[in-house]
Amino acid sequence: MQLSNRITTLLGDGHDGWGLYLKSREMIDAGIPVIELTIGEHDIRTHPDILNAMHKSALGGHTGYAAVPGVTALRQAVAARVQDRTGVPTTIDNVLITPGGQSALFSSHHAVCDEGDTALFIDPYYATYPATLRAVGAIATPVAAHARDNFEPQAEAIAKHAKGAKSLLINTPNNPTGVVYSRATLKGIADVCRENDLWLISDEVYDTQIWQGEHLSPRALPDMAQRTLVVGSMSKSHAMTGSRIGWIVAPEEAIEHLSNLATHTTYGVPGYIQDAALFALEQGPPLEAEIAAPFARRREIAMRVLDGQNVVKHLPAMGAMYLMLDVHATGMSGEEFGHALLDNEHIAVMPGNSFGQSAAGHIRVAMTVEDGVFGQALERLVGFAKGLAG
Amino acid sequence: MQLSNRITTLLGDGHDGWGLYLKSREMIDAGIPVIELTIGEHDIRTHPDILNAMHKSALGGHTGYAAVPGVTALRQAVAARVQDRTGVPTTIDNVLITPGGQSALFSSHHAVCDEGDTALFIDPYYATYPATLRAVGAIATPVAAHARDNFEPQAEAIAKHAKGAKSLLINTPNNPTGVVYSRATLKGIADVCRENDLWLISDEVYDTQIWQGEHLSPRALPDMAQRTLVVGSMSKSHAMTGSRIGWIVAPEEAIEHLSNLATHTTYGVPGYIQDAALFALEQGPPLEAEIAAPFARRREIAMRVLDGQNVVKHLPAMGAMYLMLDVHATGMSGEEFGHALLDNEHIAVMPGNSFGQSAAGHIRVAMTVEDGVFGQALERLVGFAKGLAG
Repeated sequence: MQLSNRITTLLGDGHDGWGLYLKSREMIDAGIPVIELTIGEHDIRTHPDILNAMHKSALGGHTGYAAVPGVTALRQAVAARVQDRTGVPTTIDNVLITPGGQSALFSSHHAVCDEGDTALFIDPYYATYPATLRAVGAIATPVAAHARDNFEPQAEAIAKHAKGAKSLLINTPNNPTGVVYSRATLKGIADVCRENDLWLISDEVYDTQIWQGEHLSPRALPDMAQRTLVVGSMSKSHAMTGSRIGWIVAPEEAIEHLSNLATHTTYGVPGYIQDAALFALEQGPPLEAEIAAPFARRREIAMRVLDGQNVVKHLPAMGAMYLMLDVHATGMSGEEFGHALLDNEHIAVMPGNSFGQSAAGHIRVAMTVEDGVFGQALERLVGFAKGLAG
Repeated sequence: MQLSNRITTLLGDGHDGWGLYLKSREMIDAGIPVIELTIGEHDIRTHPDILNAMHKSALGGHTGYAAVPGVTALRQAVAARVQDRTGVPTTIDNVLITPGGQSALFSSHHAVCDEGDTALFIDPYYATYPATLRAVGAIATPVAAHARDNFEPQAEAIAKHAKGAKSLLINTPNNPTGVVYSRATLKGIADVCRENDLWLISDEVYDTQIWQGEHLSPRALPDMAQRTLVVGSMSKSHAMTGSRIGWIVAPEEAIEHLSNLATHTTYGVPGYIQDAALFALEQGPPLEAEIAAPFARRREIAMRVLDGQNVVKHLPAMGAMYLMLDVHATGMSGEEFGHALLDNEHIAVMPGNSFGQSAAGHIRVAMTVEDGVFGQALERLVGFAKGLAG
């Protein structure tokens, strides 16, 4: 029996480097103690207060079908948060609650791309991006951002691919590179979108994790609110990864259609999870700062370890929970270095090429283990690289 | 800004009859006491034991990303349940856990239909069906089932549309008609699928609500396991509608691709909800019988009220939580009758044409209010119809 062409070609050929991740899992399963710096997940669990709020909602009877576009109070809280932080007028009619940021990414592309449309994304990229675009039938087209530009995409490079394209997907603060796009970069991106009538899909799920610079939502730039869909999530900001709750902020007309799409793809998000998210948002910036704090500390630790040597070079780690490290000086590719590091030091990282060709020669380090372990792992990583570089 | 053609044409023109539902909601909001027999949702909440199991799992730390195809223990429980009830060998590699039955319907069609492919479904239909098929870019093509055939689809009618089609979606026990397809009907459907190389998508979410006859999963028919995707859910069987958890049972190769699709559309289902579902399934048939019992009782009440009169005719209500009633004798369409009933008796039902052209001249009554209220409402409904038929 023949499955659809769309689903059988979903993954394309872009799965380089994930063998390393699987190898580290196998070593762990075999009882070998591996320090895991691969996946972007907090080393804490969801706060018990949030879970208790969820249980209270569930026992209180919020276990039936919830309104598909989202519970009004939560849509209001998201709208208020976005308006406060960006200055852009935002109402509940601009907000759709989704079962996680990934669903928001998929639905946003479904809303703007038809079969065969070109959808642009920036390389290096979060691992799911290309196949998410292909899942709606779009032609997923990478635009390279280069290490020499701090992995910030250049307007000219985007413009070269923009003619006839429907959408551009960006992510700032960025996974995997840790860069926070500058105002100049975002203005350049907005210019290209306006000139080429592109939809901008702006993945801002790391917006509470800024160590340097400032997060600017491109929806706040002139005339961009009407062509921007912002993807948000409780996963990274509130350590609620497993609860699968996020949102899309977009023009009213888009939200109306996206709500119809949600009726036919997910039928909404559990009401008790929405109530838990509302409780979490109501705790305000202090809780967000508490969740972000470990990554800020570990970034400082990393800067100290990396200081005063030139074998492992880092880009300015400006935001998100990752470091992108240049290991060219070892004479190895990112993938070779990753395997050698895993075999010899039992430290698992992601090779840069897992996230696109532009990040080849790099490794991504997730700052997701306890400070002491993290600092020692980074010291061993640097020592190992120095040995290779001779 | 232009949204995608696919999302803006999602709903088609098939939303007849929903005005009545909206009117009843407005009356209720205005303080008018309306007896709501419209929507298929239990009048009980999710059992506290299930919610306590969920909370225990969440507090125990199951709040991070869960495995995307589903937690192994839950996939095993679903596989065992399906194998026990159908006799078809089923392993975890045949099971994908989804965030609800609606997501399973969408993903199943994504897996077998490409843009422009013809996807068949039976009219009368559950309200989301046509737009779900359009959401994957398929051409949603109804095949009429007629009241004269008890709303069971006839193989010849399906065969007429089957040439070149990719898939057929069926639902037994059926919403909105309450019919449970006979073995002969299902054998006829299977024959058409084999002869025309169709995928069969079998929505069996009401499989625990059988009042007459026997539920047969068409996956159990000869050579059908390889071409059938079964949609299941905890919503109806365990009163977990709001928890959004269901599954697809399908050939291994399909599940492998569907798991990739899930990575890019939903990124899985909350682990604590999966643990709650596992707890619920482990309670076995007694809990399922307890959840189904009120509908069995109300069906008996309905049979007594409808007995001995010929103005409001019922099909044999064999399963699910609905009655499909023929109101032709009143001289009104289903929609006219529904409006008159709401205006005069403050009883809200769904007109049959909300569920397709084949159910025109009928109304659907959801058996979702307390027994005494339900019986009285049905008596008033019959009395009102008699007055009209005069």
